[in-house]
Amino acid sequence: MTPGHAEAPADAHGDVSVDQLRLSDELVGAGSTAASADVAEYALWLGDDALILSQQLGAWISRAPELEEDVALANIALDLLGHARSFLHYAGSHDGRSEDDLAYFRDEPAFRSSWIVEQPNGDFAQTIARQFVVSTYMVELYGSLRDSTDRTLSAIAEKSAKEVDYHRDHAVQWVLRLAGGTDESRRRIIRALADVWPYVDELFRDEALIDRLGEAAARPSSLRLGFDAVVDAVFAEAQLTVPAVTASSAGGRRGAHATPLGHLLAEMQVLARRHPGATW
Amino acid sequence: MTPGHAEAPADAHGDVSVDQLRLSDELVGAGSTAASADVAEYALWLGDDALILSQQLGAWISRAPELEEDVALANIALDLLGHARSFLHYAGSHDGRSEDDLAYFRDEPAFRSSWIVEQPNGDFAQTIARQFVVSTYMVELYGSLRDSTDRTLSAIAEKSAKEVDYHRDHAVQWVLRLAGGTDESRRRIIRALADVWPYVDELFRDEALIDRLGEAAARPSSLRLGFDAVVDAVFAEAQLTVPAVTASSAGGRRGAHATPLGHLLAEMQVLARRHPGATW
Repeated sequence: MTPGHAEAPADAHGDVSVDQLRLSDELVGAGSTAASADVAEYALWLGDDALILSQQLGAWISRAPELEEDVALANIALDLLGHARSFLHYAGSHDGRSEDDLAYFRDEPAFRSSWIVEQPNGDFAQTIARQFVVSTYMVELYGSLRDSTDRTLSAIAEKSAKEVDYHRDHAVQWVLRLAGGTDESRRRIIRALADVWPYVDELFRDEALIDRLGEAAARPSSLRLGFDAVVDAVFAEAQLTVPAVTASSAGGRRGAHATPLGHLLAEMQVLARRHPGATW
Repeated sequence: MTPGHAEAPADAHGDVSVDQLRLSDELVGAGSTAASADVAEYALWLGDDALILSQQLGAWISRAPELEEDVALANIALDLLGHARSFLHYAGSHDGRSEDDLAYFRDEPAFRSSWIVEQPNGDFAQTIARQFVVSTYMVELYGSLRDSTDRTLSAIAEKSAKEVDYHRDHAVQWVLRLAGGTDESRRRIIRALADVWPYVDELFRDEALIDRLGEAAARPSSLRLGFDAVVDAVFAEAQLTVPAVTASSAGGRRGAHATPLGHLLAEMQVLARRHPGATW
């Protein structure tokens, strides 16, 4: 099961991955102004989604079904980690915390990640289903956030948009491949999509914070139309139907999280917490 | 403990990481000629060292002491995986096996990796000590292999040389930082270097295969002088002394391996073996 698109995306990818690190460095530098309390909270929504998904995909390294896919998932994880660093650095500018303070020294209730990124990697189909939903959402999100009245948020969105576009292409190709593959691969992707679909709704909910932010944020509910259009087109080609499921109450934006996040944070934070500042 | 060299290496790195994937694609294509039995065996030496070290570093993802180091180690792991794919593809051209066949469907005795890459990640200092030794060796190796009479090996070496040069810089900076840091960080890097030093000798041993390959291979014993010069310079600056240890009998080039490799292969191969061809 070779994606068969290694060269183009890989190269395009390598290019933006340079930008990714360069932008992080700029933002980690003194370039950006401090975020307001509301903007910092919003930056946590976006940064935590990227951080948690990045950590999840990192677990595939050395476990992917083929070396080429090992490379692809690792590159996507690195892009997301770059986005997370940019958003967390900006969020920390509000109260003088560093990206590492926010990543390693917040407890579970302080994370603002959505529930879908906490969903288990499961088998490869489950990871792809989650990746298809989140990357399709992120393409709409960053496309809209480019017009943010907050210059730092729009700068991060501008750069991240190019990368999540590749992530979406990668996920779409796999959804089509699995749906059109063997009976078993089709059965697995159908089950995987049904498993993640209850968590789609949360991504498009407008919380009070969004009203307070006005033009600085990308209004979640306004992103749903574009998301549904892509889903409909892909599902039509793959002869899949949108899973009929009830939306999860979720609540990640308010700090309510399910068990998996606790385990994930424990693994991610253990070293930094054992050696604060890692200065030994 | 910030490396403080993110921008330059990151950019240089991003560039070569594009080449990495591009070259892999070329080699995975019909471009290269089939390797002889001896050249294929030698390609396994080099490919397996890169593959195993890549998998080891991959385990740091989401566990590094800071997000920036998470990015750095993941990028190094990706470079090494690219080198491994190139060498394994070429090795497989001898008998029609794919890079995935060689990575996922060989048992432990068929691996030709050196014992040093099997050494446990341990704490961060142990990973850096291993990284310092192996990347310093690889800089000498690929620098010499550029002159190989085998055009495919020299092409892979030419591209890989640029990347391992960054890997060595990264490791050297950390050796200096840890040795010159707190009493605890200095104690840890000294212990870590003593732990890996017994496995240095194996990297520079000339096996019968090397004599048969002549100018197609980089003679291991000929690389020791350059390696020692770099070690002496770094240790002098860090006020460290070369650990006085007895060389391990090792034997990885002949398929003799220690326990850790078995565990590592089990994790790396489980998915591909459970779903041969991952076609479900």
